Amino acid sequence: MSEPATDTEATRGQDVDDLRVRLTWARIAEPQDKLARRLIEQWGLRQALERVQTSISRGGGKESGIEVDIGARFAARLAHVDVDRELEMAAKVGAVILLPGQPGWPSRLDELEHPPWALWSRGEQSPAVACHRSISIVGARASTHYGDREASSLAGELCDQGFSIVSGAAYGIDAAAHRGALAAGGRTLAFLACGVDRAYPARHSNLLAQVAENGAVLSEVPPGAAPLRTRFLARNRLIAAASVGTVMVEAGLRSGARSTVSEAVALNRPVGALPGPVTSMVSAGCHEEIRAGRAVLVTDAAEVRDLCGAIGEDLAPPKNGPHRSHDGLEGLELRVWECLRPPGRRGMDVEEVTRVAGLSALEALSALGRLEASGRVRREGLQWQRV
Amino acid sequence: MSEPATDTEATRGQDVDDLRVRLTWARIAEPQDKLARRLIEQWGLRQALERVQTSISRGGGKESGIEVDIGARFAARLAHVDVDRELEMAAKVGAVILLPGQPGWPSRLDELEHPPWALWSRGEQSPAVACHRSISIVGARASTHYGDREASSLAGELCDQGFSIVSGAAYGIDAAAHRGALAAGGRTLAFLACGVDRAYPARHSNLLAQVAENGAVLSEVPPGAAPLRTRFLARNRLIAAASVGTVMVEAGLRSGARSTVSEAVALNRPVGALPGPVTSMVSAGCHEEIRAGRAVLVTDAAEVRDLCGAIGEDLAPPKNGPHRSHDGLEGLELRVWECLRPPGRRGMDVEEVTRVAGLSALEALSALGRLEASGRVRREGLQWQRV
Repeated sequence: MSEPATDTEATRGQDVDDLRVRLTWARIAEPQDKLARRLIEQWGLRQALERVQTSISRGGGKESGIEVDIGARFAARLAHVDVDRELEMAAKVGAVILLPGQPGWPSRLDELEHPPWALWSRGEQSPAVACHRSISIVGARASTHYGDREASSLAGELCDQGFSIVSGAAYGIDAAAHRGALAAGGRTLAFLACGVDRAYPARHSNLLAQVAENGAVLSEVPPGAAPLRTRFLARNRLIAAASVGTVMVEAGLRSGARSTVSEAVALNRPVGALPGPVTSMVSAGCHEEIRAGRAVLVTDAAEVRDLCGAIGEDLAPPKNGPHRSHDGLEGLELRVWECLRPPGRRGMDVEEVTRVAGLSALEALSALGRLEASGRVRREGLQWQRV
Repeated sequence: MSEPATDTEATRGQDVDDLRVRLTWARIAEPQDKLARRLIEQWGLRQALERVQTSISRGGGKESGIEVDIGARFAARLAHVDVDRELEMAAKVGAVILLPGQPGWPSRLDELEHPPWALWSRGEQSPAVACHRSISIVGARASTHYGDREASSLAGELCDQGFSIVSGAAYGIDAAAHRGALAAGGRTLAFLACGVDRAYPARHSNLLAQVAENGAVLSEVPPGAAPLRTRFLARNRLIAAASVGTVMVEAGLRSGARSTVSEAVALNRPVGALPGPVTSMVSAGCHEEIRAGRAVLVTDAAEVRDLCGAIGEDLAPPKNGPHRSHDGLEGLELRVWECLRPPGRRGMDVEEVTRVAGLSALEALSALGRLEASGRVRREGLQWQRV
């Protein structure tokens, strides 16, 4: 908790109260619990909680306009809430607790329909700063070598260009993205579906430690919370919301990464998807997102920057193939140029050029003159050929 | 030349004259010769040719409104034109000559800004019939095994669904597309940039013979004409125009196949492009066309049919991943379902479900009841678990 020195007792009191209320909600309600959200919309964070407590203490019963017993709904979890213990627990697992509007809070999260009650952050970096210029890279757990390599090099190149990499620390593309960022000496943030005290998946405990050292490991569910499926879906909206844009690198048709894309689309954030072979089932989700117009096909870091970067600042250079000797030629000059033989082969006189190119002698001579002036053809005696 | 028995002498005379004029233009002017096109726009096919002949016979000089000497331009080639010999030559190489509006003429070609003067066709099939329901498949000469295999299987599957395959008989994707069609016992058409008497590339003479047996080999340039670059570009517009839609399978950034795409776009024809690994330079052209919005990403024959087929008749089925046991679950049921342990593990009583899912006992029981009714969970004593 940050408490600037200039704070009065009153504001400090408010902050403490805000913290207490938010930590309680985080402990009793799932991130996207519809009933909790409705109560809060109606009465605000604090009063909604008071009503829940009142309902419990008077032994249940219904509030007007709410068709379920709100006391009964939250009683089981509320009985275990202890804000002081939450603070101790956060300190014990090395996490700071961030609240909306306070230093360190990634302000992009406020654009969510349901922003987190709070964030637990374990790491060396301020999430607010790291998210400011960041790209989320998400994708399949069962990724291929191709996908891992691309996710990793994409992450590394984007870090070289001053972006942080946001992902979810899962197997496959997530891990490759974090590793690419780490290898490039960049910043990377992992949003978890469980408490920041848990290493999930367990085999990523080293990776998570490195992410914390070079960025932050974040969660909206309190320490101790298990990684449930609904929490993954909720977590995905944070990955989509925290960054400037999202890139999907390999995802099957049923990949959870597609929910991250949906969240990013709902937030009007740019979404890119990397294509792959049509024979690869873990590229099928990417192809579907591109086909549906939800994602833009991207093939490299420059195109991701073009998609996500500040206008004008990060435009991808146009892609050109190798230079060819007839580049820039058109019309009669191209027609004459291509009739002529390559260097070392027999030349052609004007009459032959005229007939083969289907031009008048005047046109042929004029085109030959222009081609000679630009150094593309040369004449030896009466014979013309390419340079 | 088809001459229905009911023709009067007069119409027959007109047909013969049309044939003579068109064969002459085909011999003296390149397919997209701007001067020839301008003369014809101004005076029509026949009168424009008469003016060229007049200009030559009076020894040159300029027509009003045309800034070059039209006699001089066409004199060299016109001196060699002999319509009777053209007919003999066509017969000798086993080709029929098709003219716009006559039987066998693929009427889609009339949508071109510069339709061919005539078409030489060598083969067993009527190009008009074969083009009616056809897809063009084009791409890189320097294709990969992946591209060849996809082009081939795409062609085969489209043939199975009653499409003919149009391409250009080049190395790589073109050849793979023709071969895929042939292997499926389908119809395939090859548009050449040279005369239909020439096997270009030479190593494709067997392939071209097979295409002729199972479709047709076509060209707008007369027998004997060499494959010049401008003729390839002109030929590409025929490939784009002759079919319902075009699919690009592998193309480098500078591939000629991209000109086919441009022609198809200019004709408002649907264009698909197959993605590939971003590391493959011969997929870079496909990715660029998709990024630029000129082509739609397609991954299989169903999606090509969806893109090119008749509305309603050929819609691609939506792509679904494998069925999962929590499919169709949402809200509280999903929350309860995912708290429960898989079959074989320890069950949970309602109190535990209430706490872990963060629900009231009533909500938990009601969700468990619905899950039991749909056969997804079962109860043993007081313990609930997944089925």
